[in-house]
Amino acid sequence: MDPRVSALPFDLHAWSNAHLLRVEQALSQWVSTETPTGVDHGAPAALVAAMRYAVLDGGKRLRPLLVMAAFEATQAEPSEDVPTAEAALRAACAVELIHAYSLVHDDMPCMDNDVLRRGKPTVHVQFGEASALLAGDALQALAFELLTPGSEVVSERRQASLCRQLARAAGSAGMAGGQAIDLASVGHALSEHQLRDMHRLKTGALLQASVMMGATCGQPTPAALAALEVYGAAVGLAFQVVDDILDVTADSATLGKTAGKDADQDKPTYVSILGLERSQAYAQELLAQALGALEGSGLAQTRALAGLAKMVVNRSS
Amino acid sequence: MDPRVSALPFDLHAWSNAHLLRVEQALSQWVSTETPTGVDHGAPAALVAAMRYAVLDGGKRLRPLLVMAAFEATQAEPSEDVPTAEAALRAACAVELIHAYSLVHDDMPCMDNDVLRRGKPTVHVQFGEASALLAGDALQALAFELLTPGSEVVSERRQASLCRQLARAAGSAGMAGGQAIDLASVGHALSEHQLRDMHRLKTGALLQASVMMGATCGQPTPAALAALEVYGAAVGLAFQVVDDILDVTADSATLGKTAGKDADQDKPTYVSILGLERSQAYAQELLAQALGALEGSGLAQTRALAGLAKMVVNRSS
Repeated sequence: MDPRVSALPFDLHAWSNAHLLRVEQALSQWVSTETPTGVDHGAPAALVAAMRYAVLDGGKRLRPLLVMAAFEATQAEPSEDVPTAEAALRAACAVELIHAYSLVHDDMPCMDNDVLRRGKPTVHVQFGEASALLAGDALQALAFELLTPGSEVVSERRQASLCRQLARAAGSAGMAGGQAIDLASVGHALSEHQLRDMHRLKTGALLQASVMMGATCGQPTPAALAALEVYGAAVGLAFQVVDDILDVTADSATLGKTAGKDADQDKPTYVSILGLERSQAYAQELLAQALGALEGSGLAQTRALAGLAKMVVNRSS
Repeated sequence: MDPRVSALPFDLHAWSNAHLLRVEQALSQWVSTETPTGVDHGAPAALVAAMRYAVLDGGKRLRPLLVMAAFEATQAEPSEDVPTAEAALRAACAVELIHAYSLVHDDMPCMDNDVLRRGKPTVHVQFGEASALLAGDALQALAFELLTPGSEVVSERRQASLCRQLARAAGSAGMAGGQAIDLASVGHALSEHQLRDMHRLKTGALLQASVMMGATCGQPTPAALAALEVYGAAVGLAFQVVDDILDVTADSATLGKTAGKDADQDKPTYVSILGLERSQAYAQELLAQALGALEGSGLAQTRALAGLAKMVVNRSS
């Protein structure tokens, strides 16, 4: 980005579109039967088809955008620094692959048993349960493969750090752990504290990791890193609070998935515990926390991060 | 190992037991609700219980032993080099976690629908399908977490290389890809060539990666690496040929899993394509290939690798 445009009003939509174009292209290139160098590496076409169906042409790509925004905020000099930008692009795609695999497995009959996702039949409906299971497994592996290119296009220090952060966010102390708590909580009363712990793992860990992985591709100060952790935690939790609100207030067509599912499945949500009005106030409070962290971060270029936080809280789907 | 013992006959059983003790201890320590530094990192206990059930107290640990043997063969000086030995131990556990997760998912009703594994009820029978799905997912993530410790106990160069190899071996061009071909092949006639391609991915990729990851923790020459690739490919294929043979010749009690399953499910196997006798001859041919590669490797300390290759081919379960 040209620093001279900083004085102009920030257009999140245009910023997002520019980055989404690159992310979509990269995902389409990397989730394929070919390696990035064009060599067919022997992956069976049927499996890759299910993986592509799960990843491409859908989704808000919030996580990749958080990676790109945090990278942009922590670049010492916004420039055409191709190797580092490549690291951020790979990180952006990797977090989306983890997110996509989790949706595939989460939709399966033994989990949420959902048939509609992003307005399309879910992967197991389209390809069968066994293929959905394998496609999810392969997407998780591919995320780590993307983070570890053989060449020096990403420094080995960054490769190791990115894998470390993603593995922790995805595993038993992150996303998978949160889903296990979610599973065990159906039909049980949870306190607000327990609900927050569940969501901190289930969706918060990967959203926060997206922010921190983007920063890992930049050159953040320790103070900036600490501020981004607070930002990431607040945005991660806000995302879930708003998700719970939308499950009550929006319809299936707007959401692109089945609305009212939480209440039907007797799942504890922020709305069921706090009520609708207090949940909405809480989302605004979390937004203020996120924006406050950015203001105290010492970072100059935080407009995209701020814009994404507002988008998360004020979205209608 | 003390170099002075080299003149004594090699006792694979004693060698394996010594290494297995360390691997079992490390797996028990690392598949837990605590981090290696003893801090509870918030993983839900129910999920960790399913993960531990899937990993601990069972299995031949062939993959970890291949890691340790290849590491031992490629150490410039067998010594008390703790940091590098720690890398090998982490790699050994990581490949086993990938293997364990693949068994959990493979046993699920939508895949092989098996109820018995290592003489125990399979994970989904014991914990339910949803927990089995999540436990497998979390085990895959944990494998990459183990390979990327925050400290310098493993160099960042090795961390990146180990993650790269494991991700490729586990993903769509490796194990998951092979399972997808397997799935699509039920009830179809396969040529020997197609069968080999399937197994090269399904089981061969991770077995070969175990060898190469062990070598990554050592200091191999390029010639030694090339020889170990041949060794790993031969042992990987031999493992599957023998598996197919045992499915016909052994009983369930000996195998610790359901025997005769391949024929019942109309799956193409080496025995169904080559017949029993030619399959047995082929396994011996692959063993000779593996041992020949070791002889030409220029490596001095290959007795454990040779012993493991013989064990793979001559095992009875």
